[in-house]
Amino acid sequence: MFLRFFTNRFNFFDLFEEQVSHAVKAAHFFKEAVAQDRVSEEMLSQMAQIEHQGDNAAHTIIERLNKTFITPFDRQDIHALVMELDDITDMIHNIVSRLRVYDIIGVDKNLVEFAAVIEQSVQAVASAVRGLRHVKNVGAVFDACVEVNRLENVGDAMRDRVLAELFATEKNPITVIKWKDIYQDAETVLDVCEDVVHVVDSIMVKQA
Amino acid sequence: MFLRFFTNRFNFFDLFEEQVSHAVKAAHFFKEAVAQDRVSEEMLSQMAQIEHQGDNAAHTIIERLNKTFITPFDRQDIHALVMELDDITDMIHNIVSRLRVYDIIGVDKNLVEFAAVIEQSVQAVASAVRGLRHVKNVGAVFDACVEVNRLENVGDAMRDRVLAELFATEKNPITVIKWKDIYQDAETVLDVCEDVVHVVDSIMVKQA
Amino acid sequence: MFLRFFTNRFNFFDLFEEQVSHAVKAAHFFKEAVAQDRVSEEMLSQMAQIEHQGDNAAHTIIERLNKTFITPFDRQDIHALVMELDDITDMIHNIVSRLRVYDIIGVDKNLVEFAAVIEQSVQAVASAVRGLRHVKNVGAVFDACVEVNRLENVGDAMRDRVLAELFATEKNPITVIKWKDIYQDAETVLDVCEDVVHVVDSIMVKQA
Repeated sequence: MFLRFFTNRFNFFDLFEEQVSHAVKAAHFFKEAVAQDRVSEEMLSQMAQIEHQGDNAAHTIIERLNKTFITPFDRQDIHALVMELDDITDMIHNIVSRLRVYDIIGVDKNLVEFAAVIEQSVQAVASAVRGLRHVKNVGAVFDACVEVNRLENVGDAMRDRVLAELFATEKNPITVIKWKDIYQDAETVLDVCEDVVHVVDSIMVKQA
Repeated sequence: MFLRFFTNRFNFFDLFEEQVSHAVKAAHFFKEAVAQDRVSEEMLSQMAQIEHQGDNAAHTIIERLNKTFITPFDRQDIHALVMELDDITDMIHNIVSRLRVYDIIGVDKNLVEFAAVIEQSVQAVASAVRGLRHVKNVGAVFDACVEVNRLENVGDAMRDRVLAELFATEKNPITVIKWKDIYQDAETVLDVCEDVVHVVDSIMVKQA
Repeated sequence: MFLRFFTNRFNFFDLFEEQVSHAVKAAHFFKEAVAQDRVSEEMLSQMAQIEHQGDNAAHTIIERLNKTFITPFDRQDIHALVMELDDITDMIHNIVSRLRVYDIIGVDKNLVEFAAVIEQSVQAVASAVRGLRHVKNVGAVFDACVEVNRLENVGDAMRDRVLAELFATEKNPITVIKWKDIYQDAETVLDVCEDVVHVVDSIMVKQA
């Protein structure tokens, strides 16, 4: 029993690290994608594959959770963490898909800026998740959470600025519709990152 | 006590079947509605009535849940199931209401196609919910869940295709706004169906 | 232990009352804001401050929750209540921010009407939350919940009416985009108020 307890503990941490690695991959891919002139069919399919791997990682954790009696922390927290991490990869996939559906051509400097902030935020999320293994990491986890919160505020301000600019200067309503959706989605990724670290923060506090 | 336990078990299953029957009714009504030239005041009020009946079924279950000590499965799972099932009917009602608010006239072949997929998905959701009564149904429940997941992917692809077509061909921005909302809502119904079967799947796994 | 139990009980109630007071302040501020010709930089920063105070109140409760063993009601209900109350203030802040981002000038009678309904609803939410202190308040809490549900229906009908009017009369698509977002956000505040009283209602039923 004792052994199994620790086996399960370590499994969950490994699985979370694997899941968050797909989010990091997605964020990195997104940054590369927005530096290109357009999203090709092949790029979209690569992105879909990353999302699919993330999905599989999420399903594996939920499956284990449903079959495991003793878990390293609250079942609900594990469930929330899996779902929120999955949302990061899903949302990034959504934007890449939208860029293709809306047939966006050319590099947009605002989106490039958003993608860089998103990558930073997802990397901080990964640090926070990695820190969950040991209560002694509480300081590092807390720092990562503060960073994600900071980047969410940066994202809010960016979205407001770029939307204000869009509405003030763009005369083509269909172009307004497209970019409003894209910037909104980009900001939502940062919101989801913040949701993840709220869960991580709760878990750390309960263990302390 | 023993008797009461089983009484409650059976009540919950009956109640869930009643609740899901309103979602099935809503999906069927929706399919009929989009085959008409426009949503009449009377059709909208019929749809509102179905949604209202669904609401009542949801409230009844939550009320029982709050007053019942022993439940056939996790309280949280029951709560999640009720809320997600309620969302199906709500979302379908939303689309019908939107068709009237946006004064959509004429039959749209894409929406007809979406409505058919939605009806199939909600019927598979109903199969999955009905299967909850007996652990021995695990195979049938699992098949229904796979079908709902498959239809969600079908819906994603449909939405991307019809939106790409809309943005590529429609020149009137207000028409773009209207149909973007409607197709997005239609796809969301399929997402909610997928959320329902995730809950059903979790419940089955825990019982197995 | 006994003493600590009651200390915690009273702390939570005080904290919830503080949190909901920020939502009431936000709703009141919003009503005043929409009676002005435009949202100034200073008004937006005042609104952001109210939202920030609401955030702090939410964080305090979550922190206490994570550190407290015995709570006056289900941890999950406390968590849900904090999150939903926070959403009220966030959503109101969002609308005020949007009014500035979209550079909306002039008083809109529909939005004035929405703001009045929102203030009424948030006040009823505050009554419901205040009632949580004593099981004997069940009647008053129930009345407040019914009122919030009624106002949500009022809001639904208002949104449908103003959107139908907007789509039927407004010829500028960019203006349609802006107001569709704003009215939709306004209605969402009333949805969130309804979500809050659902949680309050559940808590009361469990205690009864």
